[in-house]
Amino acid sequence: MANLLVAQSGGPTAAINATLTGVLEIAQISNRIDNVYGAINGIEGVFSENFIVVSDIVRDTKTMDALANTPASALGSCRYKMKDPTEDDSECKRVIEIFRKHNIETFIYIGGNDSMDTVSKLSNYCKINGIEDIRIMGAPKTIDNDLAKTDHCPGFGSAAKYIGTTFAELERDIAVYKSSGVLIVEIMGRNAGWLTAASALSRLNGGKGPDLIYLCEVPFSTDKFISNVKELLDKKGSAIVAISEGLRCPDGRYLSEQMTEQTSSDEFDVFGHKYIAGAGQVLEEVVRKQIGCKVRSIELNLMQRCASHVASATDLNEAKMLGMKAVQCALEGRTGEMAIIQRLSSSPYEIKFSSVDVNLVANEEKTVPSDYINEEGNDVTEKMIEYLKPLVEGETTTYHIGGIPTHVVLYEK
Amino acid sequence: MANLLVAQSGGPTAAINATLTGVLEIAQISNRIDNVYGAINGIEGVFSENFIVVSDIVRDTKTMDALANTPASALGSCRYKMKDPTEDDSECKRVIEIFRKHNIETFIYIGGNDSMDTVSKLSNYCKINGIEDIRIMGAPKTIDNDLAKTDHCPGFGSAAKYIGTTFAELERDIAVYKSSGVLIVEIMGRNAGWLTAASALSRLNGGKGPDLIYLCEVPFSTDKFISNVKELLDKKGSAIVAISEGLRCPDGRYLSEQMTEQTSSDEFDVFGHKYIAGAGQVLEEVVRKQIGCKVRSIELNLMQRCASHVASATDLNEAKMLGMKAVQCALEGRTGEMAIIQRLSSSPYEIKFSSVDVNLVANEEKTVPSDYINEEGNDVTEKMIEYLKPLVEGETTTYHIGGIPTHVVLYEK
Repeated sequence: MANLLVAQSGGPTAAINATLTGVLEIAQISNRIDNVYGAINGIEGVFSENFIVVSDIVRDTKTMDALANTPASALGSCRYKMKDPTEDDSECKRVIEIFRKHNIETFIYIGGNDSMDTVSKLSNYCKINGIEDIRIMGAPKTIDNDLAKTDHCPGFGSAAKYIGTTFAELERDIAVYKSSGVLIVEIMGRNAGWLTAASALSRLNGGKGPDLIYLCEVPFSTDKFISNVKELLDKKGSAIVAISEGLRCPDGRYLSEQMTEQTSSDEFDVFGHKYIAGAGQVLEEVVRKQIGCKVRSIELNLMQRCASHVASATDLNEAKMLGMKAVQCALEGRTGEMAIIQRLSSSPYEIKFSSVDVNLVANEEKTVPSDYINEEGNDVTEKMIEYLKPLVEGETTTYHIGGIPTHVVLYEK
Repeated sequence: MANLLVAQSGGPTAAINATLTGVLEIAQISNRIDNVYGAINGIEGVFSENFIVVSDIVRDTKTMDALANTPASALGSCRYKMKDPTEDDSECKRVIEIFRKHNIETFIYIGGNDSMDTVSKLSNYCKINGIEDIRIMGAPKTIDNDLAKTDHCPGFGSAAKYIGTTFAELERDIAVYKSSGVLIVEIMGRNAGWLTAASALSRLNGGKGPDLIYLCEVPFSTDKFISNVKELLDKKGSAIVAISEGLRCPDGRYLSEQMTEQTSSDEFDVFGHKYIAGAGQVLEEVVRKQIGCKVRSIELNLMQRCASHVASATDLNEAKMLGMKAVQCALEGRTGEMAIIQRLSSSPYEIKFSSVDVNLVANEEKTVPSDYINEEGNDVTEKMIEYLKPLVEGETTTYHIGGIPTHVVLYEK
């Protein structure tokens, strides 16, 4: 018997630990896996051999369930870009040495685009060097829902449910005054507007939801925006606007760069993503100056990615299944792939778990198709609603003591 | 039989409609109340005689329950300051004429300090003019928890539960990276730090909660803050800081005024409250400039007051009881009072419903006592925790369809 190593990477979600429990569950019932090791802080924890034996810590189904309902990465995370083995294979070589030392034959990496880049590099290295007994599999995770080849990504459904719920509540909040002005809500999403689109879910049960939805896929016109908002103010005295953080001006620059330029932050992260924030604040100022009405901007900020207390049962269940699928693939001898969800039907909702070559996923971004956005570019279409609806179905159990959630902590920093 | 009129005022909460259901429930079982009218948009709806017959709309216990779980004021709200009848009694006189016209003998006003000012003025007018058959009662409501004479205020417990839950989740989120820098979370509260203190509830179940808590009751020293944060960064690479929006410099100015001065907003609302926002952003800039580490500020913004999906059962139940108590007092011939909660014991939690002269409440603010704050002024004491704990106990039922909450809408704007 050999060991399995699992790690998590990228931004936290409410579902990433459900995927971890899927890995743990299948390992528990397999005769071919000895211990489940967890690397702390993703691939960085592999380099430093900072391992814990997760299968020794999580030994009962109640803890397993509570872990699935714990937000963010219980094994920690990192944003580390590995060297390309075709140029410098020292890092990949080192990882494989460490795997050998700890008798690790299966490595499951749970993460987004950047993490799949790591799965791709490690598995390509193994392929080039004829290493066949080590299997490297990816399990998807990202609230952004921008991974290619999978119908949707674990973490997205829960974030979408949080956003839909929050917009339903904000709409009630804003409705109390006769004239409530403009509320601009900024939602995560640099290049993909899936999360912003989820604001429309607040309309499902008779709610009015956002009046305007601007996704980052559509070049943003400030003039059109002001004209849309003015029309609403004339008609009903208020406007709720959902916007992607990654809105861009027609010249391709992020709307938020207008503000960023005025402050000092012009930072790029290690993957070359530009640090951006503040599209909502920019538009708040635009409304204040050009219309002069009451206006407020809100960022859903980190809350939208870690709100386990309002997680989608569908999301958490699928996340777990994808963890199981990734391990099952490895047990069947597959490597260099990512577990995926294929949608067979939206109504009734039917899916299938499968896997694809991770090279088709790594560093790709799946943005919102144009037929999911209305012609005016200020709302989503019925197609988007049909796509989103099943993903937020079902409520999960939050383990409360004294009215406050309990979370499973696997390691202390 | 005569009619009862109920209205809501001030900022939305997750519990204010539970108080409305309390009013409806007791009216349903009383032989002395005919219709329950609701005035739309508080006292403004009284002046314009914009009434709905709530008892005709909410006729079954399921709708009643769903209404109790609907956030914000289902009857709308206003921020209207009535004229003092000792100086100009035209407004009070008009209100009583309208009451006579609609055969209204009981008026229940659900709201905060400013709303109790209205209750006070109307009841004082009645007293001065020997009007004894109209009874005017207040029912408390405010997430700020700053009403005098009541142990705590409906709406606060649910907001506190949202804040405790959110901090528990944010702490997990921040914990994933080896070095996560500084997270500053700005919480509502201009002059009372109760809500900010509730961030400490995130420590109840083994969570680390915020590292530093700065309430608006303590003059804020930027130097001490920077020194506190630096110490934490040295020790563990991160710091989570909870702050009240109303933090003030030792010279008495709001911290946020430093930013406000740079922008154009220097607005006061009709009650003379200064419009403030941005203490978190000010401190974010301070950290960026003086420490230079990774830093992010978050505002819990409107979400903290309307998050019905994570309401406290204790809060909603008590809110309902206070609505019932206010009506019961009126039926017993009392007027010019506000229903209150008296705490008999924290552990076990025991309370009593009572009422007090509204003049002792109107325009008063109950701030956090000094023995609820630690000596360094950067955390709360065990006394605060004991006070807070019972208020967030218990979870409520959110009525979902398709994974999104359903809300009861009593009128269309």
